[in-house]
Amino acid sequence: MEINELEEIDKTVKGWLRESRDNVLRNIDTRLTVSTKTSRRDLVTNIDKQNEKFIVSKIREFEPHARILGEEGFGDKVDSTKGRVWIVDPIDGTMNFVKQRNHFAIMIALYNDGIGELGYILDVIGNRLLSGGPKIGVFDNGQPLTPIADTALKDGLIGLSGPMVLNNEFNMVDIAEKSLGMRIYGSAGIDIISVLRGELVGYISYLKPWDFGAGKILCESAGLKMTTIDGKQLGMLSSTAVLLATRNAHRDVLTIVGK
Amino acid sequence: MEINELEEIDKTVKGWLRESRDNVLRNIDTRLTVSTKTSRRDLVTNIDKQNEKFIVSKIREFEPHARILGEEGFGDKVDSTKGRVWIVDPIDGTMNFVKQRNHFAIMIALYNDGIGELGYILDVIGNRLLSGGPKIGVFDNGQPLTPIADTALKDGLIGLSGPMVLNNEFNMVDIAEKSLGMRIYGSAGIDIISVLRGELVGYISYLKPWDFGAGKILCESAGLKMTTIDGKQLGMLSSTAVLLATRNAHRDVLTIVGK
Repeated sequence: MEINELEEIDKTVKGWLRESRDNVLRNIDTRLTVSTKTSRRDLVTNIDKQNEKFIVSKIREFEPHARILGEEGFGDKVDSTKGRVWIVDPIDGTMNFVKQRNHFAIMIALYNDGIGELGYILDVIGNRLLSGGPKIGVFDNGQPLTPIADTALKDGLIGLSGPMVLNNEFNMVDIAEKSLGMRIYGSAGIDIISVLRGELVGYISYLKPWDFGAGKILCESAGLKMTTIDGKQLGMLSSTAVLLATRNAHRDVLTIVGK
Repeated sequence: MEINELEEIDKTVKGWLRESRDNVLRNIDTRLTVSTKTSRRDLVTNIDKQNEKFIVSKIREFEPHARILGEEGFGDKVDSTKGRVWIVDPIDGTMNFVKQRNHFAIMIALYNDGIGELGYILDVIGNRLLSGGPKIGVFDNGQPLTPIADTALKDGLIGLSGPMVLNNEFNMVDIAEKSLGMRIYGSAGIDIISVLRGELVGYISYLKPWDFGAGKILCESAGLKMTTIDGKQLGMLSSTAVLLATRNAHRDVLTIVGK
């Protein structure tokens, strides 16, 4: 895709996100209906659904033949990476959303033939938008992102998935102990923003395409590495344990995982 | 102490905190000198020291004979709870301060004969001040604190200390698994603010007097329970594993700790 077109899409998506944020904030205190999906920790609310419908309708209006992969299923069944694919997470970190009314994100990604073109992660309460892609660059609330230092695991804090730590999957306890400390925030979007802003040297969690679709585009554009936990390439439609880190911390984590 | 006097002190302390925050923000990007104390994870910076000196000097100016307990040692040697004692933590969450320039707090407490009178926790970057005490009430950025629901452990998120989880001290893994999820933020001040705002049902960590001095006053005034991890009364000068929680979650955690 060409820069001109990407810049026009970029402006449009930012408009959807502003509207989407306003909708969520307007309804957050008054109209929350919570139900569980696969377990007591896997939640969905009426606002997740409303917000996905809203974003999907905006995409369809803008691009009638778009293929859309959405967490709550209001998009399409997408099983090939061919052509343009939009990925939507209407509320990432639904547990935080329900229990904290804080620390959750709205995420949108645009891929073309499996290649990431544009990614958006909006920290709704913090009102911080990470946006951009490989061709237009990465922005933090509209300002070019500060270059990220290539910090080693031992010199940084690492964001982890709580369940992976409790079960010590992939030597997660060792990884935490080699770092300066683990942090658990409970939202892929919030964790990925923290890595992009240099607050964490990495992030490890089981993720689905809507959890990492936008982050992968932003992080790779910013010089970070995002792969499976064993260092393999991460497909746009994968659901797997994901390792995002600076190049140095990525190497450090792989050594510990492989032990 | 009388309400009139407390309200005057309250106004004065808020002025110190505004000035202290400005000083920290002015120096945060340019003038940071980091050294380790007891281990590679126990840090102190020039700003911790400058800020403690600043607050201690303000207290001495205001109350020349005050006894002051400060983390960095610019106060007095305090070994009795008799009379008025001020407790100062100039930067709580120094690791976050150094590595994230985010998620740290300034804390001040005033005790009289071992009884908490006034507590202050300022989230510097979030610009959020929790303040007050048993006589004047608890405030969140100047507004009366929203009453905290008495949520059970199984229905809430719990803030934990990373090292205590990694070593499974006091059955911490079980505690995390009984909850809806653990969060690790790395700053007592930020965790305690989260409990006061109902974002977490509790918080468990090894703490020193400057880590919990202000929080104990605010939390007890807000109807929360703060004790040692085995449910004993928490002395103002203790250094111990601390359990802060709603009444229900406090009972739930004690059951698991005692197993």
